[in-house]
Amino acid sequence: MEDLECKNGNLGVFETGNLKVQTIKVKKSDSSSPPTQLYIVAPVSEGTYPLLLFCHGYCIHNTWYSQLLQHISSHGYIIVAPQFYKCMLIALNYEVKTAAKVTDWLCTGLQSVLPEKVQPNLSKVALTGHGRGGKIAFGLALGHAPVSLKFKALLGIDPVAYPNPPTWPEPEILTYVPRSFDLSIPIGVIGTGLGNQPKCMMPPFAPNGINHAEFFNESKPPCSYFLAKDYGGCDVLDDSKAALASWVCKSGKGSKALMRKGVGGIVVAFLKAYLGGQDDDLKAIADAPTIAPITLDSVIFVKE
Amino acid sequence: MEDLECKNGNLGVFETGNLKVQTIKVKKSDSSSPPTQLYIVAPVSEGTYPLLLFCHGYCIHNTWYSQLLQHISSHGYIIVAPQFYKCMLIALNYEVKTAAKVTDWLCTGLQSVLPEKVQPNLSKVALTGHGRGGKIAFGLALGHAPVSLKFKALLGIDPVAYPNPPTWPEPEILTYVPRSFDLSIPIGVIGTGLGNQPKCMMPPFAPNGINHAEFFNESKPPCSYFLAKDYGGCDVLDDSKAALASWVCKSGKGSKALMRKGVGGIVVAFLKAYLGGQDDDLKAIADAPTIAPITLDSVIFVKE
Repeated sequence: MEDLECKNGNLGVFETGNLKVQTIKVKKSDSSSPPTQLYIVAPVSEGTYPLLLFCHGYCIHNTWYSQLLQHISSHGYIIVAPQFYKCMLIALNYEVKTAAKVTDWLCTGLQSVLPEKVQPNLSKVALTGHGRGGKIAFGLALGHAPVSLKFKALLGIDPVAYPNPPTWPEPEILTYVPRSFDLSIPIGVIGTGLGNQPKCMMPPFAPNGINHAEFFNESKPPCSYFLAKDYGGCDVLDDSKAALASWVCKSGKGSKALMRKGVGGIVVAFLKAYLGGQDDDLKAIADAPTIAPITLDSVIFVKE
Repeated sequence: MEDLECKNGNLGVFETGNLKVQTIKVKKSDSSSPPTQLYIVAPVSEGTYPLLLFCHGYCIHNTWYSQLLQHISSHGYIIVAPQFYKCMLIALNYEVKTAAKVTDWLCTGLQSVLPEKVQPNLSKVALTGHGRGGKIAFGLALGHAPVSLKFKALLGIDPVAYPNPPTWPEPEILTYVPRSFDLSIPIGVIGTGLGNQPKCMMPPFAPNGINHAEFFNESKPPCSYFLAKDYGGCDVLDDSKAALASWVCKSGKGSKALMRKGVGGIVVAFLKAYLGGQDDDLKAIADAPTIAPITLDSVIFVKE
C-alpha cells in the first residue's frame, strides 16, 4: 500500500493538507485495552501513514488540541494523543510510564481501533509533547521507561520541566549541561516568546531556565529550534480553549489560527524531514523564517 | 618589536609558559589615573604583548587569582585585573561602567605603569571574567557601557548571572533565547561541574539556569564550551584562597593546581586561537579533551 505522507508542495505545510481526517476517541474500556483514554486523529483515505505520539500539557485535555492535530494529520500522519490524567486534577500519575505503555500499545492495539484501510507505519514513529508534555516526551525518549518501539525523531512544543515534588516517581530531565541528552535521533524544539511571562497573579507557563531554551541547549545535533516570538504557551490550543487559557497563561495578541498554522507547519516540515526523508520544507524555513505565517525569531539549525 | 605571544609547543598551554612574569599593583591615586585599583601581570622580557582584561568574581579580590593569571601571562599576555569593590562588601558599584572606564584607560594609562620595554598590543585585546565577573565581561562586550576599544574575543570562566536587586543600575544579561547575544566575536565558556551544588547552608556558586550552560546557549558561533566536571567555581583561586572559599563554595576533591593548569591552558589556547591566529592547541583540546590535566566532560565547538 502506498505511503501517503508528505505529498503537498512547497510550504503547503503551513496550510491544511490535502487529506480529509477523522477523529477517534478510545476509552480505556475498549477491547484493544489501551493503557489510558486516547484521542486519535488520522486520515480517512486508504493508506499507510507514519505515526506521531502526542503528549498533552499540564491540566490540558488531549482534545483541546484538535485543530492543531487535524492540521498535522491532514498532511498524512496518524496522531495518538493519550490523556494522562483528568483535566484540572493534580497530576499524580507517572506520566512517562503511561506514555511508554501507550507506545507499546501502538503495536498491539492501534490497528484494531482504526479503519482497516488506514494502517500505521510502525517503523516511522515520532514523539512530541506540549508544555509539561514536552518534558514527558523527552523523558520517554531518554528511556526513563522502556518501550518496544524506537522513536525516529523528537519534537518539543514549548516544553517545560517544572521540578517534581519530593517523592515524585519521575526523574528530572534537565541536567544544565549543554548537549547532555543521551539521544542520537533528530530533535526539534519550538518555543514561545511569551511563555516566560507571568499572567496576572499566575506564574509563567514556561519560566526561564526550565523552558524551550534549555531543552534546546541540552540537545545534541542534529537539532533545530524555532521561537514563536509573539505568542504564549497556550496559543496552540483550539480557539475556544486558548481563549479560556488566556486568563491564566500569557497569550499573544495575534491570531491563534496563524499560531496553529505556524506550529503545525513546523511539525509537518520536521516530520517530513525525519520520517519521510524530504527536508526541503524544513530547509526552506531555516533559510527564510519569514515564509512562516508567524514571526519566527529566531530559527537555529545545528547539523554537525 | 617582535610580538612574543604563543611561542610554546603543543599543549604546553597546560604548563607554565617560557616567559618570566612580574606583577604590578596600581593604586587609584597613581598618576596614570586608573578608574579603580588594578592588579597587572605581565611578562618581564622586552616585547609587545596582547592584552587580557580580567573581571574578578563576587566578593573575590583581584589578587586571589595570582597563580592563574601568572600561568596565562607566562605564555605572552599582559593581564589587567581591576578591583570593582572592596572584598566582602556588598557590591553597590556599577561594575560594567567601571570595567568600561578601565578599558578606555588601557589606551591612555597602561603603558605608563609598565616597564618601557613591555608594550601592550592594543589591537589584540580579549575580555574575560570569573563568576559574577563573567557576567560583567559579557555585559561589557554587549555594549552596556561604551568603550573606545574593540574586544577580539570573550571568555567566561564559570560565569554566573545572579539577578540584580531592584533599582540596580545594571541591565540583565541573559535573555533565555538561544544564540541571542548580539556579539560576532568568538566566545568561550568554561563551566564547573560542581558550581551548581550548594555547600552546607550556602546557595550554589553558580545555580542552574543562570550559569555557564545558559551563557553558552545564548552565544552565537563561533563558540566553544568546556566543562571542568569535577571542580567547583572557586577552585581556580590561589591555593590558600581556594581553601578558604571551600568553606562556602562547593569544591572539587582534586588538586587545585591541576584545575588552574586546566583552566589556564584553555584560556591560553583560546587566546592563541583568537588573538594569535594559531588554533592548533584549541583544536587539539576539542579533538581529544583527555589531553587536559582535568576531566573536561564535555567539550563543544560550534563553528558555523
